[in-house]
Amino acid sequence: MARTPVWKSIAIALTDDIAQGRYETGAKLPPEAQLSARFGVNRHTVRRALAEMAEQGLVHARRGAGVFVAAKPADYPIGKRVRFHQNLAREGRTPAKQVLMLETRAAGVREAEALGLAPGDPVHVYDGLSLADGQPVALAQAIFPAERLPDLCGALREETSITAALKACGVADYTRLETRITAKLATATQALHLRISEGAPILRTTSISVDPDGTPVEFGRTWFAGDRVTLTVGGED
Amino acid sequence: MARTPVWKSIAIALTDDIAQGRYETGAKLPPEAQLSARFGVNRHTVRRALAEMAEQGLVHARRGAGVFVAAKPADYPIGKRVRFHQNLAREGRTPAKQVLMLETRAAGVREAEALGLAPGDPVHVYDGLSLADGQPVALAQAIFPAERLPDLCGALREETSITAALKACGVADYTRLETRITAKLATATQALHLRISEGAPILRTTSISVDPDGTPVEFGRTWFAGDRVTLTVGGED
Repeated sequence: MARTPVWKSIAIALTDDIAQGRYETGAKLPPEAQLSARFGVNRHTVRRALAEMAEQGLVHARRGAGVFVAAKPADYPIGKRVRFHQNLAREGRTPAKQVLMLETRAAGVREAEALGLAPGDPVHVYDGLSLADGQPVALAQAIFPAERLPDLCGALREETSITAALKACGVADYTRLETRITAKLATATQALHLRISEGAPILRTTSISVDPDGTPVEFGRTWFAGDRVTLTVGGED
Repeated sequence: MARTPVWKSIAIALTDDIAQGRYETGAKLPPEAQLSARFGVNRHTVRRALAEMAEQGLVHARRGAGVFVAAKPADYPIGKRVRFHQNLAREGRTPAKQVLMLETRAAGVREAEALGLAPGDPVHVYDGLSLADGQPVALAQAIFPAERLPDLCGALREETSITAALKACGVADYTRLETRITAKLATATQALHLRISEGAPILRTTSISVDPDGTPVEFGRTWFAGDRVTLTVGGED
């Protein structure tokens, strides 16, 4: 049987320690010398394991200070009811949103198609930043039919979530028809908002949500920082 | 109301033409002069629209030859039954797989946990490349309990799909418990196999599949070329 390389089995063991809560988010790992002794290997091997874990975003080294456990990525269930605030609150995180732009303009071809409108019909466009515990996790653009929801822009400014704003405008419930997911590289603007590097991995989702009658109420696109979010499918929905 | 920039509305119109089948995959778009005339704009504006579309992977320019419609990304439904071959065949593409490595070795901590084994129990490890119409779309690693499926390595070599190999070993049906999705950057090795650039966006999925009794039969990780695949959730399942 082929063997797992020693550095890899150390990375696996330390990753497991983090997953089991032996080292909490933000905690400092034991120094290299101590890890060398624990695993019975030289420092070079320990360093290789830590480098692998850093690449996976599990730990980060602070020069002269040591190696620290990075935040665990937030799980984000994708299903019929996708609610940013509920998803994060369930994980014990504090969700927040920042409105970047709100405008009413003519729908483009794809936007109109998604919402069952004619191109040129008015739509509200919401551009926002979603945060978890103060850390940006996603950029969201949501497009709504303006004639159906004339007062939505005001509600989006006042309410803490899109769900609450839609409710205030008479849409008590809505579900997702389909979510499309792909991977992209962060543009300079996205990187700036999300506080990640330009070219960092991004998960982009596209979705159409409908009210209980099946009428589209939202066409949404979201760009998640790949290192901070894991989308999950199944398991619950 | 704010207006969509002219170059953007041209990109939207051409994208729509491609989606509607006016220009097929691999077809050459009309030359810039002709597009300028059609939209009543200068060449600079047409070029900006085409550059935007190229960035989205919808078209690619060949020096001196013109601008061509790139392959549309394959839709890949993520649900309880995820079957690579069926998913692609449904889209009219020819699926294929290449075995990169097959080995039987001791399970690591996470692998054992995923499969309900003890660390060190034997597992079969399949590393393979999945292709659509001869183009690599994904690297897959699948890990199977070796004691339960002693003859699986032979079956994986002979059969055209993992589903068929599991069937040959007595697993007539299996379903996914949960799929976890994140975005990564392609490593040098992944880029080489997938024929993409190092650092290109990758969709990584992790999943556990169980037989009808709920016993885990596969722990799978797949790395999809982000530009070639769109994962879809809901809509069908």
